[in-house]
Amino acid sequence: MTQNIYDNPDFFARYSQLGRSVEGLDGAPEWPTLQAMLPDLHGLRVLDIGCGFGWFCRWARQAGAAKVMGLDVSERMLERARATTQDPAIRYERTDAEGLALPAAAFDLVYSSLALHYVVALERLLATLHRTLVPGGGLVFSMEHPIFTAPSAPGWVVDAEGRRTWPIDGYLKEGPRSTDWLAKGVIKQHRTIGTVLTLLLSAGFTLTHVEEWSPTDAQIAARPALAVERERPMFLLVGAQR
Amino acid sequence: MTQNIYDNPDFFARYSQLGRSVEGLDGAPEWPTLQAMLPDLHGLRVLDIGCGFGWFCRWARQAGAAKVMGLDVSERMLERARATTQDPAIRYERTDAEGLALPAAAFDLVYSSLALHYVVALERLLATLHRTLVPGGGLVFSMEHPIFTAPSAPGWVVDAEGRRTWPIDGYLKEGPRSTDWLAKGVIKQHRTIGTVLTLLLSAGFTLTHVEEWSPTDAQIAARPALAVERERPMFLLVGAQR
Repeated sequence: MTQNIYDNPDFFARYSQLGRSVEGLDGAPEWPTLQAMLPDLHGLRVLDIGCGFGWFCRWARQAGAAKVMGLDVSERMLERARATTQDPAIRYERTDAEGLALPAAAFDLVYSSLALHYVVALERLLATLHRTLVPGGGLVFSMEHPIFTAPSAPGWVVDAEGRRTWPIDGYLKEGPRSTDWLAKGVIKQHRTIGTVLTLLLSAGFTLTHVEEWSPTDAQIAARPALAVERERPMFLLVGAQR
Repeated sequence: MTQNIYDNPDFFARYSQLGRSVEGLDGAPEWPTLQAMLPDLHGLRVLDIGCGFGWFCRWARQAGAAKVMGLDVSERMLERARATTQDPAIRYERTDAEGLALPAAAFDLVYSSLALHYVVALERLLATLHRTLVPGGGLVFSMEHPIFTAPSAPGWVVDAEGRRTWPIDGYLKEGPRSTDWLAKGVIKQHRTIGTVLTLLLSAGFTLTHVEEWSPTDAQIAARPALAVERERPMFLLVGAQR
């Protein structure tokens, strides 16, 4: 079963202080790239898998979506999400990816930001998402890049020549990875890009966009610490169509 | 312009001694995976980009292809390829990827093994390949994985805990990489997976298969040195359709 680390009090307290938690979408450097992959939202029925504090759900409504449903496994995050809006066209529901049941052809767009690398039963989830999209509907998501999730000891190393590198091992050994990010023992599911894309194709999706996020020159100028993100990709961004 | 290192006498002498040069397809551990991505070749017109010694061209004829054209930049390799067959349905031609001109809708399948990471003008080549395929025709290729091509100093490192890792830097900095493989100063073009797949989509291809090659348990049992290939992917295998 997929771990619900977001309801761990220590993890939640630390996660709540991240830029992307405080500033919302503008605090996430990959957001402009992900946003550019979205269709015009006017009149669309939108589903957000792993909606967290609901930043995207509220943004989607402002961008013209007719109806937005945000799903998350974390009760703490949903509580806060619910407290930030009174818009009756936004609905939040608690569910884990494993138990997810959705009506057929009910959504025009499924969005997910940095959630799918937690999901154990990804094949089943993708089948559910394919079924709940209308024909021609879109799926746009980000997840942690397998280069980021693969290593048995993830982290930067500075070698004898002063080069900063990200040592990889276990890239082709798929399965859970336990890391200490914000709290001890956070469990992510490591899958290769090949596996993620093959699961999408097998579920019946057509691939429309595959991108490995890089900060722009302007982003690095504004925030020099981002430069290191060009040494290895942190995020995989994918667009697909039913 | 794409470098023609294969006509460098030292490189050629060393390349000629590799398992895949001596044993042909069976000497290439990724061949069974690539082979499984191919359609039934009976009656097909097949184009091989970077045909080298012509192992695949001869195999394709045995597998039923009606006509096979092998292209390569290396005169030395083509000489040897021509010397190994008298089959009039196999034709070898010298050309570089940059100058490649092919008739429209003339082939049912384009195949390429470990050649595209040398090509500078990949966008133009893919447009040419799209045009020379019939609608519904397939493109199946392998190339060096960007994790393999990215590093400024590619190689294995054993860390203080005894873990063997492949340190990455520069993954998102695309462009030429000069490495010393068989000869000094071999120039490869580093591109991310995102870029390779986006170029295919932009050229009009539909993606049908993306795989990062891993040795099987049986291959590792037969040749234990292959186990390390599970730590980081060496080859990217892609299937697409016009």
